[in-house]
Amino acid sequence: MKLIIGNKNYSSWSLRAWLAAKQSGLAFEELTVPIYGEDWEQRKRSSDELAPSSGKVPILWDGDAVVWDSLAIIEYLADKVGRDRFWPKADEARAMARSMVAEMHSSYLPLRRTCPMNIRARVEGVAIDGEVRADVVRILQLWAEARARFGKGGPFLFGTFCAADVIYAPVVSRFLTYGIAVPGFAQVYMQAVWEHEWMQAWIAAASAEDWVIEQFETPVIG
Amino acid sequence: MKLIIGNKNYSSWSLRAWLAAKQSGLAFEELTVPIYGEDWEQRKRSSDELAPSSGKVPILWDGDAVVWDSLAIIEYLADKVGRDRFWPKADEARAMARSMVAEMHSSYLPLRRTCPMNIRARVEGVAIDGEVRADVVRILQLWAEARARFGKGGPFLFGTFCAADVIYAPVVSRFLTYGIAVPGFAQVYMQAVWEHEWMQAWIAAASAEDWVIEQFETPVIG
Ligand SMILES: N[C@@H](CCC(=O)N[C@@H](CS)C(=O)NCC(=O)O)C(=O)O
Ligand SMILES: N[C@@H](CCC(=O)N[C@@H](CS)C(=O)NCC(=O)O)C(=O)O
Repeated sequence: MKLIIGNKNYSSWSLRAWLAAKQSGLAFEELTVPIYGEDWEQRKRSSDELAPSSGKVPILWDGDAVVWDSLAIIEYLADKVGRDRFWPKADEARAMARSMVAEMHSSYLPLRRTCPMNIRARVEGVAIDGEVRADVVRILQLWAEARARFGKGGPFLFGTFCAADVIYAPVVSRFLTYGIAVPGFAQVYMQAVWEHEWMQAWIAAASAEDWVIEQFETPVIG
Repeated sequence: MKLIIGNKNYSSWSLRAWLAAKQSGLAFEELTVPIYGEDWEQRKRSSDELAPSSGKVPILWDGDAVVWDSLAIIEYLADKVGRDRFWPKADEARAMARSMVAEMHSSYLPLRRTCPMNIRARVEGVAIDGEVRADVVRILQLWAEARARFGKGGPFLFGTFCAADVIYAPVVSRFLTYGIAVPGFAQVYMQAVWEHEWMQAWIAAASAEDWVIEQFETPVIG
């Protein structure tokens, strides 16, 4: 299997797919392509490997099978190694995990626009408007409910590390690097994600990257 | 199981969840709540049944398990009745189906904004800008590839009716009711979806609804 991802510092959907590939336990080769750079538009038009998604990452190639979306990659890998590695076993927990993952996949545009993932950033407290605030409140509410109802078995949303943590990992990064204030339970959860060995490996690689994308480096400081 | 959906004429994500519930073969009760109407904002804030999604439909209640997103509902139902009822069996086909479903779930905002689902509308050819055109072209390209590579066994994207048809059904409706010109292969596919007995039942119910939502009734005519 070969996983094509974008710059580790900036590409939030790539982080998700990469964590999912790790979670599968399968061996995979990874290829980082610098996206958003000067030659990106040209490059994505001329690459056969990027063609299926018309030039978005992540893309997973598994022989001739190609999967070009982070959530589809999670499900495709779950098909291969068994659902229980990615999703809670109990119906109620799995129903909530699947719902909050799908909500992340289709929502929170204000948060995503105002606070693009930037692993290296350290902002003291970004200025956020009402829409971003509503996204933050909603996410904290979902985290609180998952932790309270289903989180007994470990420090993650549903106890052990699962697809929901994979999908919310870039949000953890945003809350931390943009200095968004969160209640204590969320701080504890975020620390567990941040210190996870795969996250630490990703953060180290992101920190070692030279690419700087200006449009993601100019948050309005509050 | 109880499925809560919005107005059948307008609620595209509800149509998907309802088709998925049909596809599961399981018995379910349905409840239509008129969304976007005058008292909607008030209503969604005060309803326990709508609380998990903070007032978005569709929502599936299965005992105490609650699933509040169309794609999560598909996967939850697939967990219950077996994946093969929703997804192609072969890896390559399933990889593509999962990817194009996820792409629909997270993309095509220009198309969705310009041509909100309106089953009863009959527009001769809506005026679309370049962004909407790009969405249409991308969708037609995905349909063409799925039909050509995996569609041998029947008239649907992957032959027999599957999750990909469920998720693109509202796009079929948009292309038809807004008079968007499509090539012959797509006309044939769209007709198969439109004539599907579940679609016909949904269309009949949509046509019988009294609710008229002005904001979805004023497309710019080309
Ligand atoms: N829904 C997709 C989103 C993929 C996406 O938007 N990827 C971004 C990077 S995080 C990208 O490739 N942007 C480059 C571009 O659009 O040119 C997923 O879940 O994988
Ligand atoms: N990602 C969700 C989208 C759900 C959604 O946006 N539903 C619309 C109707 S199609 C809704 O409930 N709108 C009412 C509102 O937001 O107040 C899904 O796939 O189910």
